[in-house]
Amino acid sequence: MRVAATEQALRTPSVDPRVTRTRQDVLPVAAALLLDEGWAAVTHQRVAREAGYAKATLYAHWPTRTDLLVDLFTRFVEVPHHTPTGDLRADLVAELTTFRTAVAELRLDRVLAVLVDLTASVPELAEVRERVATEGEQVIRALLAPHLDGVRLEAATRMLAGSLVQSALLHGTAPDPPLIEALVDLTLTAIQDRDR
Amino acid sequence: MRVAATEQALRTPSVDPRVTRTRQDVLPVAAALLLDEGWAAVTHQRVAREAGYAKATLYAHWPTRTDLLVDLFTRFVEVPHHTPTGDLRADLVAELTTFRTAVAELRLDRVLAVLVDLTASVPELAEVRERVATEGEQVIRALLAPHLDGVRLEAATRMLAGSLVQSALLHGTAPDPPLIEALVDLTLTAIQDRDR
Repeated sequence: MRVAATEQALRTPSVDPRVTRTRQDVLPVAAALLLDEGWAAVTHQRVAREAGYAKATLYAHWPTRTDLLVDLFTRFVEVPHHTPTGDLRADLVAELTTFRTAVAELRLDRVLAVLVDLTASVPELAEVRERVATEGEQVIRALLAPHLDGVRLEAATRMLAGSLVQSALLHGTAPDPPLIEALVDLTLTAIQDRDR
Repeated sequence: MRVAATEQALRTPSVDPRVTRTRQDVLPVAAALLLDEGWAAVTHQRVAREAGYAKATLYAHWPTRTDLLVDLFTRFVEVPHHTPTGDLRADLVAELTTFRTAVAELRLDRVLAVLVDLTASVPELAEVRERVATEGEQVIRALLAPHLDGVRLEAATRMLAGSLVQSALLHGTAPDPPLIEALVDLTLTAIQDRDR
C-alpha cells in the first residue's frame, strides 16, 4: 500500500490518493453539518468525529475553518449541467431542469443560501461564490450567446438563472415544468425579435 | 403621561404609543446585530443592552428569539417602491432602481441573504420570507399584468426580480444602470411580441 502510494505519487506528484480519499470522506460530512446545523457545527473536532478521522489529520489538510469552508463550497462550482443538442428550446428547458434536480438531489438551494449568507462574514468565500454563480450560468450563457451579446447577453443570462434562484431561495420551491417552459418561451420571444 | 397613554389606548385600543416606541427603538438594533454578527448575537440580553432597555421589557414584547426575528424581518415586507407614471419602460427602470437603492441604504441584500439562510432552521420565518418576496415583486407584477397573465406573468415577474437577486446575492453587486436598461428592454421585447 505504501509502495503503491509512492509509485502513484511519482507518476502524478501533486495527487496522493490518501489525500484524495480523505477529502472525499470529509468534505461531504462537513457540508452536511453546515447545511443541517449551521456554521457553528463546523469545527475540526466535530467534523473529525462525524467523519471518523483524527482531529490532527483534519488540521493537516485544512489549517483553519475558513480553509475547510472554501474547499467545501468549491465542490459546488461543478454541478450537473445539460449537454446541448442544438434544439434551443429543448436545451434551455433541460438546462433549467438540471437546477431543479440539483435542488432535490444536492440541496443546491441550501448550499446557495448558506454561501451567500456566510460570504458576508468570511470574505475569502467571495471568489468561490462568484465561481459558483458564473459556472452555474455557463450553459445558459453559451446557449444564448449566438443570439445576444454584451450587456444584453448578461441580462438574459441573469434573468433565467435569477428566476431559478428567486423561486428556490425566496419562494421556497424550484420552478415546476410549466413555469420553466414559460421562462424559456419568454426568453425565446425576446431573442427571436432581436433576430428579425 | 400615564393619563395621556390611557386616553390614547381608549381611542385606538390596539396601539399603545409606548409599545410602538419600544418596537421602533429595538427592532433596528436587533436587525443591525443580526446583519453584522449573525443569529448568535441576537439574544434578549445583548439586544436589550445595545438598545438601552431592560431585558424584562424585551421578554414582555417578544417572549422568544423567534418572535423577535419574525418582527424584525416583517419590517422588510414594506420596502420603498416606485409609483408608476404610465410610461412602462421608465416605470420598470425606476422600479428596478429602487432595489439598487434599497441595497445601498437598507442593506436589503444582507437582509435577504440572512432571511433565506435562517428560514431553514426557523420554519416560522417561511411566511415572512414569502411576504417579503411577493411584496418585493408587487410593482413589477402590476406593471406587467396588462401584457401577460397566468404562468407567463409569474415567469416574467420572477425573471426581473430574480435578476436583481442573482446579481446582488450571487455576484455581490446590484445591477448598474446599463444592466437595468438591458433587463427592461429584453422584457419589453418579449411583451411587445405577445401583443402583436
